[in-house]
Amino acid sequence: MSWMKPFHHAARILPSVQVVGTTLKLHSCRLRDPLSLVPACLVRPYSAFATSAPRSYAFQVPKSKKKQTDKMSSGTTLKGQPLDKAALESMLRRRMFYTPSFEIYGGVSGLYDYGPPGCALQANIIDTWRKHFVLEEDMLEVDCSVLTPHDVLKTSGHVDKFADWMCKDPKNGEILRADHFVEDVLEARLKGDKEARGQKVEEKEDDPKKKKKKAKSEAVKLDDAVVKQYEEILAQIDNYDGEQLGELIKKYDLRNPATGVQPSPPVAFNLMFQTSIGPSSNLPGYLRPETAQGQFLNFAKLLEFNTGQMPFASASIGKSYRNEISPRAGLLRVREFLMAEIEHFVDPEGHKKHARFHEVENIELAFLDRHTQLSGSTAVKKQTIGQAVKEGLVDNETLGYFLARIHLFLKKIGIDQTKIRFRQHMANEMAHYACDCWDAELLTSGGWVECVGCADRSAYDLSVHAKKTGAPLVVRAQLDEPRVFEEWEIQIEKKKFGPYYKKDGKTVEAAILATSQQERGKLAKELEETGKVVIEVPGVGDGKVEVSKDLLAINWVKRTEHTREYTPNVIEPSFGIGRILYSLIEHNYWTRGTEGGDEARGVLSFPPAIAPTKVLIVPLSNNKDFTPIVHKLSQKLRSAGVSSRVDDSSASIGKRYSRNDELGTPFGVTVDFQTIKDGTLTLRERDSTKQVRAEENKIIEAIKDLVDGKKTWQDIESELPLFEGQEVEVAVR
Amino acid sequence: MSWMKPFHHAARILPSVQVVGTTLKLHSCRLRDPLSLVPACLVRPYSAFATSAPRSYAFQVPKSKKKQTDKMSSGTTLKGQPLDKAALESMLRRRMFYTPSFEIYGGVSGLYDYGPPGCALQANIIDTWRKHFVLEEDMLEVDCSVLTPHDVLKTSGHVDKFADWMCKDPKNGEILRADHFVEDVLEARLKGDKEARGQKVEEKEDDPKKKKKKAKSEAVKLDDAVVKQYEEILAQIDNYDGEQLGELIKKYDLRNPATGVQPSPPVAFNLMFQTSIGPSSNLPGYLRPETAQGQFLNFAKLLEFNTGQMPFASASIGKSYRNEISPRAGLLRVREFLMAEIEHFVDPEGHKKHARFHEVENIELAFLDRHTQLSGSTAVKKQTIGQAVKEGLVDNETLGYFLARIHLFLKKIGIDQTKIRFRQHMANEMAHYACDCWDAELLTSGGWVECVGCADRSAYDLSVHAKKTGAPLVVRAQLDEPRVFEEWEIQIEKKKFGPYYKKDGKTVEAAILATSQQERGKLAKELEETGKVVIEVPGVGDGKVEVSKDLLAINWVKRTEHTREYTPNVIEPSFGIGRILYSLIEHNYWTRGTEGGDEARGVLSFPPAIAPTKVLIVPLSNNKDFTPIVHKLSQKLRSAGVSSRVDDSSASIGKRYSRNDELGTPFGVTVDFQTIKDGTLTLRERDSTKQVRAEENKIIEAIKDLVDGKKTWQDIESELPLFEGQEVEVAVR
Repeated sequence: MSWMKPFHHAARILPSVQVVGTTLKLHSCRLRDPLSLVPACLVRPYSAFATSAPRSYAFQVPKSKKKQTDKMSSGTTLKGQPLDKAALESMLRRRMFYTPSFEIYGGVSGLYDYGPPGCALQANIIDTWRKHFVLEEDMLEVDCSVLTPHDVLKTSGHVDKFADWMCKDPKNGEILRADHFVEDVLEARLKGDKEARGQKVEEKEDDPKKKKKKAKSEAVKLDDAVVKQYEEILAQIDNYDGEQLGELIKKYDLRNPATGVQPSPPVAFNLMFQTSIGPSSNLPGYLRPETAQGQFLNFAKLLEFNTGQMPFASASIGKSYRNEISPRAGLLRVREFLMAEIEHFVDPEGHKKHARFHEVENIELAFLDRHTQLSGSTAVKKQTIGQAVKEGLVDNETLGYFLARIHLFLKKIGIDQTKIRFRQHMANEMAHYACDCWDAELLTSGGWVECVGCADRSAYDLSVHAKKTGAPLVVRAQLDEPRVFEEWEIQIEKKKFGPYYKKDGKTVEAAILATSQQERGKLAKELEETGKVVIEVPGVGDGKVEVSKDLLAINWVKRTEHTREYTPNVIEPSFGIGRILYSLIEHNYWTRGTEGGDEARGVLSFPPAIAPTKVLIVPLSNNKDFTPIVHKLSQKLRSAGVSSRVDDSSASIGKRYSRNDELGTPFGVTVDFQTIKDGTLTLRERDSTKQVRAEENKIIEAIKDLVDGKKTWQDIESELPLFEGQEVEVAVR
Repeated sequence: MSWMKPFHHAARILPSVQVVGTTLKLHSCRLRDPLSLVPACLVRPYSAFATSAPRSYAFQVPKSKKKQTDKMSSGTTLKGQPLDKAALESMLRRRMFYTPSFEIYGGVSGLYDYGPPGCALQANIIDTWRKHFVLEEDMLEVDCSVLTPHDVLKTSGHVDKFADWMCKDPKNGEILRADHFVEDVLEARLKGDKEARGQKVEEKEDDPKKKKKKAKSEAVKLDDAVVKQYEEILAQIDNYDGEQLGELIKKYDLRNPATGVQPSPPVAFNLMFQTSIGPSSNLPGYLRPETAQGQFLNFAKLLEFNTGQMPFASASIGKSYRNEISPRAGLLRVREFLMAEIEHFVDPEGHKKHARFHEVENIELAFLDRHTQLSGSTAVKKQTIGQAVKEGLVDNETLGYFLARIHLFLKKIGIDQTKIRFRQHMANEMAHYACDCWDAELLTSGGWVECVGCADRSAYDLSVHAKKTGAPLVVRAQLDEPRVFEEWEIQIEKKKFGPYYKKDGKTVEAAILATSQQERGKLAKELEETGKVVIEVPGVGDGKVEVSKDLLAINWVKRTEHTREYTPNVIEPSFGIGRILYSLIEHNYWTRGTEGGDEARGVLSFPPAIAPTKVLIVPLSNNKDFTPIVHKLSQKLRSAGVSSRVDDSSASIGKRYSRNDELGTPFGVTVDFQTIKDGTLTLRERDSTKQVRAEENKIIEAIKDLVDGKKTWQDIESELPLFEGQEVEVAVR
């Protein structure tokens, strides 16, 4: 089958992959293999920030509850108007916030370019993020390679587990994401049933492309029992693995509406982009699916840079890549995206207290905890983070501190506070090593979108890399009192050991030293009884290595320790910048009627600090006398650190201001004939369209205070004389 | 041969590639194929910013002259001391400026992670770049996808031409870059000759790894004629193609010193990282080798965003990727790197004047023009850019404007002005369509390094993409007077044309419409005489398509035009941020002796605006009374927009300051017992190690003025009382 190529391909490039049976089997086996080193639940995408839409904003909320959410999610503007998504999207395209990449070549789905306003918006979000987290908390920012060799992502579990299930339509060759396909067909049948019963059916706002492809509902009444079964399946759609999805397809005879045939059984598709590093093609690599691994690998150096002091956090801003099977939903699911991730390293002893927790403890958040979700409700509970940690709702202070800081960050950039909730992962949604995990979700016209994940990942990541490489990714802390104890001690006969195992020596030694006290006890017994032990050493031979007692001794010894060695736990706040950016746009969008009333005009009310451009300078006409004034003003604003743009096009003043309302520019300065006479300028505020008039220096000072957040527009209105010159209200083209 | 895999691989993934003969032949043919659409000289890496070392800092400077340069390039510090590169590198590693990526997994050559100081330095360079270029010039910044589909890079010429020549040692499998190999062996022989003649041989400072691998010279005397031949070959090493390099290897019996055998004939190795986009594996793609293509593809939208006004520039900051055959030389040749590129679009008519040229015309630059280079000299000529453009040394004002702006940028971030030169590309080094091209080169211990390329690329890029896609990447300008003229007009019989060519219709039509007036004249004749014409349409059938006269008419018609349509020319300044960052470090590095005189202490004298951290806060000891003072100070600095770090480790004050001299932190504030009494603090300046003492607010104000560049340390010394407290001079570990 030609479509199996990607797997053959993988097997060919990756010499370390053992092909077992057919390629198809290889993958489906692996994902369920109980003996696999990394259980499925360990894999990050399902625990941290995920790009996959259903996981991101549906998770395991019972379907009936999801529907409630969807009703809300038809979307409202900043002013509570119903959100006309088509109008918004057309505006964003027209103003080049973002645009499909390579559009003149037909485009590539899941890839977008940011145009000037989108790029500036992104830079301002990042700048605020850096100030709010990195500078405020003295985090150690790093910038690590995107190209990542196979071994690193094998250890982290991504090579084996970072996959979605896909099916192929045998008739037209269409590739379907299995869970989406099952969901779409069952939803269509339920909709048809409702129509047949004469119930009102809510049309879900959605991507037009998706709508076209979607299973068309026919008004066919179903048995009540069948309806119940379908609803139960939909409620736990994210729980099924590939085999189970395949069984559902067969059992309910789910057919691709485009062809009327059943798709093939689901196979796993790894979501990482694969490449080959260097000329000899023997170093397979991937584009990183997250920035976190680079931070983990540098842990020892970062700890040293921090003069050995704990706790501390590293941070990284950079692109990550996920080869989505069928990306849709615009910026919400893409193949190349900007992430900002923090790894906060903390001593697991001492309840993960946080020294600055008192600064945030009175901040109120909207919590949707796991018990509420299991009870079938999506009702949020408002509570201070201090109370939530005290009650044990949030596991520890450090996690709680970051939830509050995430909330403050989202508030600062202009996210609507009524459209944020913190949703707790349910037990079976969370990796087994994690203590607690919360997502900051933002409400958009597409429903609740996971924009920030915040997980307590315990010592998992550092442990697996340390085990694989033998690198000491640990902290040595001075003990107040020396500790005396007995334990199993490994002694390796170095002189014989190295020559015996040759190139594998280090790996075997690392595996031996990585054994637990309990394991050592058993090994000591084995060694005494049989004169040898068998150690599991993945990657060496068949994975099992025999070590005889002339190479190894295991003794029960008394020891005194002055230091304690531990692997830090990691609290990981992980931000999807593109999703935040898109939500921010929706949250700040509204429309105002024109004077004629024929066309609504879009406005993006970004806070000044986040707005792509702060000031629009508008000369009244192309009169030559305006030029030096405009030039000087723009220079002065620049040296005051305020970004401005000049619009000296021939469009009317009103049209030029409207264009900039759409771009979210908060202030406008008009240069007119009065300016030539007395040096005064008018200053217009975007949201109220009110204007004041004053001389240049006062206007610049006012703008600077507004942009820095030192004054509000109300302050300025009360300080400077209002200008009643009519703003010509012309509808934008 | 197993090492041919990358080429088989390429041919397999890219269905559009036609395999001709053996794969080896395929590639070597292509690069020399005179009928190929894109001649080798069109390819950007050889005209714009190149990562390949010999091209970057050797080019075609006659070898004897290069040696002169190399003598200089043993390197000096900021204070003119001989640069101890090993000491600098050890310091950079210790302070985690950068570190090999994935080091605990053994590392991957050509990939580096930036640690906290490197990351902050990079962010400050980028921030300054954005202010200096994007904000100052109202450029349209975009952020485009790194993943790029095959077709785009096929059109740009990268798929066929973006390659280096590589050989393989048949004995040990080592892969060698052919030009480097020839160079190394001949240089070793010349060195051996010198030794045999008893001449002094200068040891070139170089990468230790390289040195090990390098051909070892043996003291063997050569014929004078042979010496001359070798020198001539080395002088033009960048001029040889693969076949010629292969001939040199055979003719002079060049053998790999590691094995004593001749390597195999050179084959082309494409430098792009290849991947596959989407699940079906049918969309081959690459990681972009430059950010420029995304900007070109968005030209029409950017022009519209700019309300149709010309000239304008777009800009982009982002990572690019080149799969170097054998990267070495640290940050100077890497596989993943940050670029900042500007594409300035300008009307080719009117001599490319620039409205702000008068602002820079008196700036003096150091020029190394092509005539000087051809005459065998590397003597630079200092001249104002105004004079250089007037004399025709620099082709036009726009190009000249950017050269001056590049110079000002490099000066602003702290590049040593005596270590910048602008080197003009020689005629055979430049793409045929380019009018002029200059590189800003910075002098480092490794010689002159190309850090910024600045080329006038004419209309090449927009033209090839327009031709391929049919997208109108043009500007329509209003004419002052309507133009009346006669020309050949194409008329396509749309109703028949589409159904006849089916899916190829658009491509065929685009090819017909892309014909020049001269070609149309010929086609009209052909059509009249034979009733059909044959059009070249690459990618359709065998590349030739027959069009009969019932589908097409070509008439000589009279027309009146009110607008003029033109394809803008592009002036492209292209910055390699990693190279600039490394050069900046070398230019700002120096050492001062300790009091004992036993160990030199490193200092990085970055300008305050660029320094990773601006202020170090040092409590005298871990006395609890200092904590609230330190906390408040750090808060106040933060709200003044100044980044600081606290070092409350137990190291001595002197040691803590020394550590921060190595990090380039320009200012230090000590909190001592006097502070508790009277609220005064000491402020230390890194370069002079002098200190002043004043109360908190005055110190904060002084720091802010220093960081903003409003005051110098001399100003502060004259304003605030000097503090004579002894700084304990302790050698850093």
